[in-house]
Amino acid sequence: MSDLLRLRPATTPAMLAVFDDGATIAHALAFEAALARAQAAEGLIAATVAEHIGVVCDELVIDPAALATEAALAGTLAIPLVKRLRAALDRDGAAAVHFGATSQDLADTVLMLQAKAAAALVLHDCRRVTEALAVRAADHATRPALGRTLLQDALPIGFGLRLAQWLSGIDEAARRLARDIDAHAAVQLGGATGTRAKWSGRGEAVADRVAEALGLTPALPWHGRRGGVAAIASSLGIVIGALGKMARDVALLAQNAIGEAREPEVPGRGGSSAMAHKRNPTGCQIALAAATRGPGLVASVLGGMAQEQERGLGGWQAEGPVLAELFMIAGGSAEAMAGVAEGLEIDGVAIDRNLAAAGLGHDVGESSAMVTSILQDFRKAADAVRDTR
Amino acid sequence: MSDLLRLRPATTPAMLAVFDDGATIAHALAFEAALARAQAAEGLIAATVAEHIGVVCDELVIDPAALATEAALAGTLAIPLVKRLRAALDRDGAAAVHFGATSQDLADTVLMLQAKAAAALVLHDCRRVTEALAVRAADHATRPALGRTLLQDALPIGFGLRLAQWLSGIDEAARRLARDIDAHAAVQLGGATGTRAKWSGRGEAVADRVAEALGLTPALPWHGRRGGVAAIASSLGIVIGALGKMARDVALLAQNAIGEAREPEVPGRGGSSAMAHKRNPTGCQIALAAATRGPGLVASVLGGMAQEQERGLGGWQAEGPVLAELFMIAGGSAEAMAGVAEGLEIDGVAIDRNLAAAGLGHDVGESSAMVTSILQDFRKAADAVRDTR
Amino acid sequence: MSDLLRLRPATTPAMLAVFDDGATIAHALAFEAALARAQAAEGLIAATVAEHIGVVCDELVIDPAALATEAALAGTLAIPLVKRLRAALDRDGAAAVHFGATSQDLADTVLMLQAKAAAALVLHDCRRVTEALAVRAADHATRPALGRTLLQDALPIGFGLRLAQWLSGIDEAARRLARDIDAHAAVQLGGATGTRAKWSGRGEAVADRVAEALGLTPALPWHGRRGGVAAIASSLGIVIGALGKMARDVALLAQNAIGEAREPEVPGRGGSSAMAHKRNPTGCQIALAAATRGPGLVASVLGGMAQEQERGLGGWQAEGPVLAELFMIAGGSAEAMAGVAEGLEIDGVAIDRNLAAAGLGHDVGESSAMVTSILQDFRKAADAVRDTR
Amino acid sequence: MSDLLRLRPATTPAMLAVFDDGATIAHALAFEAALARAQAAEGLIAATVAEHIGVVCDELVIDPAALATEAALAGTLAIPLVKRLRAALDRDGAAAVHFGATSQDLADTVLMLQAKAAAALVLHDCRRVTEALAVRAADHATRPALGRTLLQDALPIGFGLRLAQWLSGIDEAARRLARDIDAHAAVQLGGATGTRAKWSGRGEAVADRVAEALGLTPALPWHGRRGGVAAIASSLGIVIGALGKMARDVALLAQNAIGEAREPEVPGRGGSSAMAHKRNPTGCQIALAAATRGPGLVASVLGGMAQEQERGLGGWQAEGPVLAELFMIAGGSAEAMAGVAEGLEIDGVAIDRNLAAAGLGHDVGESSAMVTSILQDFRKAADAVRDTR
Repeated sequence: MSDLLRLRPATTPAMLAVFDDGATIAHALAFEAALARAQAAEGLIAATVAEHIGVVCDELVIDPAALATEAALAGTLAIPLVKRLRAALDRDGAAAVHFGATSQDLADTVLMLQAKAAAALVLHDCRRVTEALAVRAADHATRPALGRTLLQDALPIGFGLRLAQWLSGIDEAARRLARDIDAHAAVQLGGATGTRAKWSGRGEAVADRVAEALGLTPALPWHGRRGGVAAIASSLGIVIGALGKMARDVALLAQNAIGEAREPEVPGRGGSSAMAHKRNPTGCQIALAAATRGPGLVASVLGGMAQEQERGLGGWQAEGPVLAELFMIAGGSAEAMAGVAEGLEIDGVAIDRNLAAAGLGHDVGESSAMVTSILQDFRKAADAVRDTR
Repeated sequence: MSDLLRLRPATTPAMLAVFDDGATIAHALAFEAALARAQAAEGLIAATVAEHIGVVCDELVIDPAALATEAALAGTLAIPLVKRLRAALDRDGAAAVHFGATSQDLADTVLMLQAKAAAALVLHDCRRVTEALAVRAADHATRPALGRTLLQDALPIGFGLRLAQWLSGIDEAARRLARDIDAHAAVQLGGATGTRAKWSGRGEAVADRVAEALGLTPALPWHGRRGGVAAIASSLGIVIGALGKMARDVALLAQNAIGEAREPEVPGRGGSSAMAHKRNPTGCQIALAAATRGPGLVASVLGGMAQEQERGLGGWQAEGPVLAELFMIAGGSAEAMAGVAEGLEIDGVAIDRNLAAAGLGHDVGESSAMVTSILQDFRKAADAVRDTR
Repeated sequence: MSDLLRLRPATTPAMLAVFDDGATIAHALAFEAALARAQAAEGLIAATVAEHIGVVCDELVIDPAALATEAALAGTLAIPLVKRLRAALDRDGAAAVHFGATSQDLADTVLMLQAKAAAALVLHDCRRVTEALAVRAADHATRPALGRTLLQDALPIGFGLRLAQWLSGIDEAARRLARDIDAHAAVQLGGATGTRAKWSGRGEAVADRVAEALGLTPALPWHGRRGGVAAIASSLGIVIGALGKMARDVALLAQNAIGEAREPEVPGRGGSSAMAHKRNPTGCQIALAAATRGPGLVASVLGGMAQEQERGLGGWQAEGPVLAELFMIAGGSAEAMAGVAEGLEIDGVAIDRNLAAAGLGHDVGESSAMVTSILQDFRKAADAVRDTR
Repeated sequence: MSDLLRLRPATTPAMLAVFDDGATIAHALAFEAALARAQAAEGLIAATVAEHIGVVCDELVIDPAALATEAALAGTLAIPLVKRLRAALDRDGAAAVHFGATSQDLADTVLMLQAKAAAALVLHDCRRVTEALAVRAADHATRPALGRTLLQDALPIGFGLRLAQWLSGIDEAARRLARDIDAHAAVQLGGATGTRAKWSGRGEAVADRVAEALGLTPALPWHGRRGGVAAIASSLGIVIGALGKMARDVALLAQNAIGEAREPEVPGRGGSSAMAHKRNPTGCQIALAAATRGPGLVASVLGGMAQEQERGLGGWQAEGPVLAELFMIAGGSAEAMAGVAEGLEIDGVAIDRNLAAAGLGHDVGESSAMVTSILQDFRKAADAVRDTR
């Protein structure tokens, strides 16, 4: 009962693996193990109990389909998962596991673990795009080409400036996403009403240990405060938009009547079931489809922010699949455009011909200096982005 | 590599089955078989060739994972699917299969077949909601209850009028969806540029036969004209909103301080991993999460309407997963609220107590006549809706 | 303190007039007058009192700025408006005016009066588009032109089929809007909690009379049931999308490298402040900007559907400005594209040249029959649409 | 022909003034004056010419209605505005004014000037909210109150923690907006195709001078790179969501059956035209209506990102009214919630009564330490936010 045919075209195998059942269950068990160890480190439970829990979390095999059915009924993943865990533990383990935590602690922490892994994939492929564009932009910085505005021929532009502008938009969006992941891919651990009431005054320390063990940012409980999720979602929306901008331009440049650039030829890609002569811009198609879907998904996350009281009804529960979808299309778009950028075929003859035909001169103004400036900024920012991956 | 844990909580097993890989492939093969038979009926290919294609379409086993990978690369499902079909056919069959059609013909027709099946599920469960509400509304038509506006106590209302208003909103939305499915769940068959050029002047007849064989509405090619998909999507959005309205009210009525109604108790449902005393409104949670997600998904479909030329790049390709998602959450919401409506626990003592405490009298105005009027309209409209299922 | 410079580019003077302060106040006073007369007709108040109220409603001059400030403070237009009315009436009039009604009755009825007037403008200009396209589609039905798919040259198409497809999408969308206005531009009259409690059992009759007087559809109170508003909003979104589709195509056809069609030259329109040689597709710009804005606005209306109890807090109050915005951009788009359709410059030489250059033949398949079919459907549906205006 | 009655309820007079015609024209003239002076400083035109232009820009009186009509026809504000300017200048001034700039340079720079002013209003009122909440959160940090999750009674919470969580969400959102304004409220100055071709190699210096004169961030041309606008829009969306969260909770606490907190009584506010006994949460209504509208508006901005080539058609033209709308509802929401926070009536008796009735104990866990931690973070971040205003 998989739905690869609906999802696969929009994303990558690696991204699917981040959000599949196996990963979801593994993250959930890692959360429970980390919580047990953190409680032990704070003297709340015996170290041997924590180790026992850790071993069971490592080894427990759970049938995703049955778990999903029960989770749907329960309205939360935590209840059937913890039930299985308890059944596999001894009495002390059963008493200590998930102690003090609430379903949403598990759900949000798992989502943030997936967000962090997914963002790394998106950022890696955005980096492939920008590195490839940096080389091409430098190569073509001063080549005069016809600029176009409002879909009409306008005045010349350095062809490389167009590429550098794509680069700049994508790099800035990627850095924004990286910052938001650093700040907001945070542990969730607050217990029933977010007061950490069950840990004998050691709640903050427990939460910090869980965060460290899982590689997440430490945080006060944010059950009802969803700005961090909204920040990540909107940054993804901007990444998708910036990649879509490049895709729109490549597709327009690749029109037969213009022909200044086109996607690389890839065996098995871009064919037509009706027209053998065609070479479709399939990479751009993926990015443009993502750009069509992204804004509404961001709206869905924002639309749930005004949720109720200490932990809401329907708002945060809507976020998981939407955020997963955003990451999936962002990842698919970034990978597709990485391939486009790395293999972009630039047709100098067509560029020259179109420019000459327009008869609007060759003055590209400060294009070259702008390209240099964009590339310098890009290199300067590179270390920071690399560190977040 | 399934993602039931992300999707399952939001929908039903039956709805997942509508959109899973097996169904997608089966519909695609049914399209190719119907096309072959239609061509034969119009004298374009031999009947024996069509029968051969039909048999192979019935029997062909396709690995979804491999197909999905190739489809992602190709940018379309049709190319790898037709390749497999051709490999399994004799030479005449290979020449005749998919003849004259384009990838989008397959994609859109499959999507509409799934839309039709999915809508039947949504409408069935909406009907369960409205039938259950009709009984309860009649029972409580004249019972005075406290009405509330702007979240403040207001003047009395017949308790049954509240239920009848939910019914009316959901029934009207369901009928709108049924009309849109009738009108717009249409065959797509136009060939490369929507001119039906390859069928020797028999294109319209071929398309009509395919429509009839598949149970879809006949139509001129609509490759670039996406108003029908947008109509279905927005009608789903309204269904989701109408169910969400009921869910919002049930959840507010179920607050402990009010307690006038609550979801039925279902074993395994609505528990809390932190608080044994709680009974969470899990059905309402599903419907409210759907209501949080729906508007953005409708926006995604509308956002793709201004697509390019004869068949666009990125617009229609975005619709499939979005429409599937809309149906999945609509289906999940309708089923959840069907359970809520059928088992709704109405607490007359609490109703009376709250009304008395407010001290705002007992005058319910024309509540009873309105309930009667809503129920009459509902019964009158029932046959029409039933016919579309 | 007007904001014409922000709003005017997106809409028409006629549409601004529908939603301006003068119209809002006039509709509000018309509602109060109609309510008084309906009460008199049902014997609830004296005819002389109703006439007195009617006269005062006709003659009362209200300062919009002061009214707006008080309405903002009160959270509703009705309170300061009715206060002014009462101050201008004698004692019996003051007691009878607005009797039994609630603020939302006024707000929703005014909004629907504006929706009805605004829809007539949109439909009128959509009709200009489709009438103009019908002529051009017939003229060019059989002219072979290059079809383009996924932004690549594909196979030929009858140039008129492209125009007929635009027509079909816009006409269908317009008819949907007309149906939704007929069904859902309804009177709102329910009183505090929607029970019509104050009219001595004559509430339904009063409401029906108000509906008739104002030219709105009679309806049960729909304070918390917002599917009708959502239906109108989504139909507007589809109109905007269908017009955007045409605009996208005209802009692509008008690219200098293609040049098959372009907007008519209009003095003062489409110039460039930097490039005297340019002729920008300004009409398409308006329609494409509307298509960018429409989907999110529809989402806003859908996002408010799950509102609370008998009359909600924040949901319906959000609808007024959003629906106004949707009508304004739909009206601007329809008028702009009417101008484009009526003056569309079709360049047969360029069409022929591009087709020849592609070398993909001249077979336009069933283009001509399809154009005929679309035009027949259009004519058949015309009377129905005309009736709704 | 104003529309205060549609807009005023959602925003403040100060915010309307930021986006009204007078401000738009004043900013446009300030841009032209700054451009002239920057050109003079770089030796491109005579200082006397620049001064002449400056004086005329200061003194020119423009009729907004006529300008708006011509701008709508032209598709851009710049053309009729510059035409008027040139008519008022001597020959040298007419040649020098707007030299090298394009319409979008003017439009984007004006929009960013308005964004900066509007953000200051939003941040000021957010600060009022958070300062007021800081005081109340400290006062009530340890007061046990009933916590509620999934709209059901859950376990106790320190009442002040609830307030501190609102504070934290709003403060974080405000700081994000401040950062985005600092980074992205940037000058736009690139000329026809963004190459700054007309300024003899001094384009960057000219642009930097214009930025400094207008108080905007210096930037390379960003005509086709809209991530900055999308960043501002999404940060506004998050501010609106965070304020909406607080409003949702206040409205739920103010339900008569709960009564733990309510909006302050303000003369003329929150009344009912049908029920004299009611006190409606009108401030929350404004914030919740904003939260209903915000997500779709953010989606509209994101939906325009994939725009065409050097300067697109329909994408950036859609942003101005949408961004203005977002600021207007954010400003209205922030001011409304500032009033709510400053006058919030907290009913200790009701808090105690509800807690006792639930019988779920008094353990508020680490609520007090969390409040302290949130308030410390808030104070630490305060200087940074204050600097951006």
